[in-house]
Amino acid sequence: MALRDRVRDVVDGRRFQRMVIAVIVVNAITLGCETSTTLASSYGEVFDALDGAALGLFVLELAARLYAHGPRFFRDPWNCFDFVVVGVALLPAAGPLSVVRALRVLRALRLVAMVPSMRRVVTALVRSIPGLLSLSGLLLLMLYVGSVVAINLFRASGDPRFGDLGATVLTLFQITTGDGWSDVMRDLMATQPFAWIFFLVYLLVGTFTMLNLFIAVVCSAMESESAPVRGDADDRLAEEIRALREEVRALRLEPVGDRG
Amino acid sequence: MALRDRVRDVVDGRRFQRMVIAVIVVNAITLGCETSTTLASSYGEVFDALDGAALGLFVLELAARLYAHGPRFFRDPWNCFDFVVVGVALLPAAGPLSVVRALRVLRALRLVAMVPSMRRVVTALVRSIPGLLSLSGLLLLMLYVGSVVAINLFRASGDPRFGDLGATVLTLFQITTGDGWSDVMRDLMATQPFAWIFFLVYLLVGTFTMLNLFIAVVCSAMESESAPVRGDADDRLAEEIRALREEVRALRLEPVGDRG
Amino acid sequence: MALRDRVRDVVDGRRFQRMVIAVIVVNAITLGCETSTTLASSYGEVFDALDGAALGLFVLELAARLYAHGPRFFRDPWNCFDFVVVGVALLPAAGPLSVVRALRVLRALRLVAMVPSMRRVVTALVRSIPGLLSLSGLLLLMLYVGSVVAINLFRASGDPRFGDLGATVLTLFQITTGDGWSDVMRDLMATQPFAWIFFLVYLLVGTFTMLNLFIAVVCSAMESESAPVRGDADDRLAEEIRALREEVRALRLEPVGDRG
Amino acid sequence: MALRDRVRDVVDGRRFQRMVIAVIVVNAITLGCETSTTLASSYGEVFDALDGAALGLFVLELAARLYAHGPRFFRDPWNCFDFVVVGVALLPAAGPLSVVRALRVLRALRLVAMVPSMRRVVTALVRSIPGLLSLSGLLLLMLYVGSVVAINLFRASGDPRFGDLGATVLTLFQITTGDGWSDVMRDLMATQPFAWIFFLVYLLVGTFTMLNLFIAVVCSAMESESAPVRGDADDRLAEEIRALREEVRALRLEPVGDRG
Repeated sequence: MALRDRVRDVVDGRRFQRMVIAVIVVNAITLGCETSTTLASSYGEVFDALDGAALGLFVLELAARLYAHGPRFFRDPWNCFDFVVVGVALLPAAGPLSVVRALRVLRALRLVAMVPSMRRVVTALVRSIPGLLSLSGLLLLMLYVGSVVAINLFRASGDPRFGDLGATVLTLFQITTGDGWSDVMRDLMATQPFAWIFFLVYLLVGTFTMLNLFIAVVCSAMESESAPVRGDADDRLAEEIRALREEVRALRLEPVGDRG
Repeated sequence: MALRDRVRDVVDGRRFQRMVIAVIVVNAITLGCETSTTLASSYGEVFDALDGAALGLFVLELAARLYAHGPRFFRDPWNCFDFVVVGVALLPAAGPLSVVRALRVLRALRLVAMVPSMRRVVTALVRSIPGLLSLSGLLLLMLYVGSVVAINLFRASGDPRFGDLGATVLTLFQITTGDGWSDVMRDLMATQPFAWIFFLVYLLVGTFTMLNLFIAVVCSAMESESAPVRGDADDRLAEEIRALREEVRALRLEPVGDRG
Repeated sequence: MALRDRVRDVVDGRRFQRMVIAVIVVNAITLGCETSTTLASSYGEVFDALDGAALGLFVLELAARLYAHGPRFFRDPWNCFDFVVVGVALLPAAGPLSVVRALRVLRALRLVAMVPSMRRVVTALVRSIPGLLSLSGLLLLMLYVGSVVAINLFRASGDPRFGDLGATVLTLFQITTGDGWSDVMRDLMATQPFAWIFFLVYLLVGTFTMLNLFIAVVCSAMESESAPVRGDADDRLAEEIRALREEVRALRLEPVGDRG
Repeated sequence: MALRDRVRDVVDGRRFQRMVIAVIVVNAITLGCETSTTLASSYGEVFDALDGAALGLFVLELAARLYAHGPRFFRDPWNCFDFVVVGVALLPAAGPLSVVRALRVLRALRLVAMVPSMRRVVTALVRSIPGLLSLSGLLLLMLYVGSVVAINLFRASGDPRFGDLGATVLTLFQITTGDGWSDVMRDLMATQPFAWIFFLVYLLVGTFTMLNLFIAVVCSAMESESAPVRGDADDRLAEEIRALREEVRALRLEPVGDRG
C-alpha cells in the first residue's frame, strides 16, 4: 500500500503530467512529419523508433496509473478514453486492420484530457449531448424517411446520387448541410420537372428543424448555467426578508415592561 | 360501454403501444430494404406481404382507438396525423397517384407520435410556428416581389434560371440559402454588368431579414420558457413581504394591554 | 374642416384599408402574370389597364390621406414609404429609366404597411439597424482594406475576379458569405502558392467579426425587450417594501394612548 | 513640461483628431484609386506624393503623441497598433518585402481607433477572444489530428487536395466551413468507397464543436453584460429591506415613554 501511495503521488504530480504532455506533443509532431514523403524516406526509421518509444511510455504510464488508482481508474471517462486510444495502437496494423495505422494520431487527442481548460470545454460539449438525443433521433428518422421517398421518386432518373439507399442518405445529408443542393435539384429537374417540390419541403422542414432545435438546446444549456446566479440573488433577498420578519415577531412577543 | 372501456385500457396500455412501435419499425425497415433492387428482386413478395400486414395492423389499431375514444379521438392532432398517414396508404397507388406509393414510408413518422421525448420536441417545434407566420409571410412577399423584379431585369439574358416566374422564384430561394449565388451572379454579369446591384441588395435584405427575425423568434420562445421561473421567484419574494406586512399591521392593531 | 374630418374617418376606417389591401394584392398578381410571355401576349392590354387603374387608385388614396392628415402625414415613415413607392411609378418608364418599370412590383411591399403583424416585424427589424451601424461600418472598412490588399497581391495572376477594385470587392463579399471561397483560392494557388494565407486571415477575421457582432446585436435587442418585464417585477417588489416601511414608520409615530 | 502639456492638449484635442481622420480617409481613397490601372498611369505620381505626405503626417503625429504622453503611450494597445501599422510602412518595399507595399492600406484600419463607436465594437470583439482560446486550441488540434488521419487514408487516391500535410489541413478547413465538402467526398469515393465515413465523422464532430462552443461563448459574453443590470436591481431591493430592518430595530430599542 505504501508503494501504491508513492506511485500515486508521482503519477498525479505536476511534473509527471507535464512529461506526459511533452511525450504526446512530440509524438503528434513525429506522426505529422511522417506524412511528408521526403522526410519519411530520410528519417522513416527515426520516426518509427520515436513512435514506438512514445507508445511504450504511454503503456507504462497507463500501467502505473492503473496500479496507483486500482479499479477506480475506470470510473473517470477520460481514463477510459486514454485506455482505448493507447490500446488500439497495440492492435496489429497489418492486413484488414491497416486503417488502424492511420488512426495512431488520435493519441494526440489525449492532450484534451491533460489540459484542464480543454477538458472543461469538451466536458461541457459532452454534457449537451443528452439534450440532443431526441433531436438527433428525429433528424435520423427524417433522413431515413426522406431517403426512402427520394430513392423511390428519383431512381428512375439514373442519377448515381440516388442509385441506392446509402448514396441517397448521403445526398440528403449533403442537402441538409446546404452544400450544392441546387446543383442536385437542377440535374434532377431536367428529367423530373417537379423534383423541386421534394427539395423545397425537405429543405424547409429539415433545415428548420435542425437549426431551431439546435439553437433551443444550446440556449437552454446556457440558461441552466446562468439560472443559479439569479436563484442565489433571490435567496439572498428572501433571507433578508425572513430575518426582518423574525425581528417584527420578536417585537410583538416582548412584554411592554422589558422595553421601558 | 364496458367493452369500450376495456378496449380503451388495452389501446392506451404500454404493451399495446410497444407492439405498435415494433410494427412501425419493422415496416420502416422493410420499406427501406425494398429500395435495394437486389433484395427487391429476391424478396419482393415478402416485402409486399409485410407491408400489407403492417397496413392492416395500422388500420385495425386506428379503428380500435377510434372506437375506444369516440369523436374525442380527433381532438388530438397526433391522432389526426396518424389517421391521415394511414388513410393515404389506402388510396389506389396506380396511375397519376403512383407517387403515393413513394410516400408510404411517411408512416414511419408515426414513431414521433409514439415516443414521448420526440413528441415533446416536435410539439415545441410546432408551437414556434405561429410566431413565425408574419415572418414567413414577409419572406414570401420578398421572394415574390424579388422574383418579379428579377425576371423583368434578367429575362433578356436568356438564362434558363430566369426563364419563367417559377424558375426565378426557385433561383431566388437558392440565393436566399446562399448556395452558389456567386455562380448565378457571374453568369449574368457577362451580359448585364450591373446585375451585382440586384444580388447585393437582395442578399443583404433577404438574408438579414431571415436570420435576424429567425433568431429573434427562437430566442423569444426561450425567453417565455424561462420567464415563469423568474416570475415564480418574484412571487415568492412578494409573498414573503406581504406576510411581513400582515404581522406589522397586527402589531399596530393590538391593544397595549394584550402585550404586557 | 368638417369635410377633412369626414375624409379622415373614411381613410382611417377598416373598410377603406381592406379595399386598399385588395387593390395591392390584385396589382401584385397582375404584375406577376405579366411576366409570363404566353399570358402577356394574350392579355397584355388587360394587365396594362389593371396596372394603370391600380396606380390611379393609389394616387387617389394617397391624395385623400394627404388631405385628411395634412403635413403630419409625412411624420409616419410608413406613409413616406407609400409616397415614394407610388411616386416612382409615375416617372416616365422609357429610355434610361426603363429599369423603373421592373420596380413597379415594389408597390406590393405596401402590403407590409397595411398588415399590422408584418408592420410590427419590419419595425423591429428597422429598429435593430442603428445598433448595426458601427458593425456595418467596420465590415465595409474591412471589405475595402481587404480588397485593396487582395488586388495588389492577386492582380498579377490575371484572374478576372481580381481584375479591378469593383470585381475584387465583389469577390471578397462572396468569400465573406462563404460561397465557393475554396474554388477562388485553389485557382489562385496554381500561380501564387501562398494565396491561402490571405484567405485564411480574411475568412477568420471577417466571418468571425460578422457572426460574433451580428449575434451580439440581435441578442442585445432581445435583452432590451425582455428587460422591462424584469424591471417591472423589481419595481413591484420595491413598491411592496416601501409600503411596508410606511406602516412601520406610522407605528413609531403613533402615541401609545391611541392603541389602548 | 509646459511645452509637453501644450502638445498634449493639441494632440488630444478634437480638431487634431478630426484632421488625422481626414488624412486617413484621403490616404485610403488614394490607395484605392491607385489600384485602377488607368488612374495609376495618369496620376501615379500624384498618388505616390499623397501617400508619402500621409505617411509623413502619420510619423509626425505619432512622434507628437509619443512626446506628449511619454512611455505611457505604449500602455494603450490602440497606440501600439498605430505604431506598428505606421512603422511597417517605413520598411523598404523592394525585394522580398514587396508584399509590404500591398499592406500599406492596413493604415486605413487606424480609422477604427479614431472613431469611438467602432473602437467599442472592436474592443468587445477582442475581449471575447480569451474565452475562445481553449476552443480555438481544440479546433486546431482536431484540424491537425483529422489532417494526419486524412492524409494517411486518402494520399493513395492521388488527389492533390490530399497531396501533403499543408494541402490536407487546407482541405479540412474548407470542409469545416462547409464549402464544397460534397465535391471533395464524391471525388474520393470514386476510388475509396468508404471515404464517406471519415467525412461524416469529421463534419459532425467538427462543425458541431465549432458551432456549439461558438454560440456558447458569444452568449456567455452577453450574459455577463446583462448580469450587472440584474445585480443592480437586486442590490436596490436589498438596500430597501435593510433600511426597513433598521427602522424596526429602532422601534424595539425605543423606550415606551418616548412614544406617549
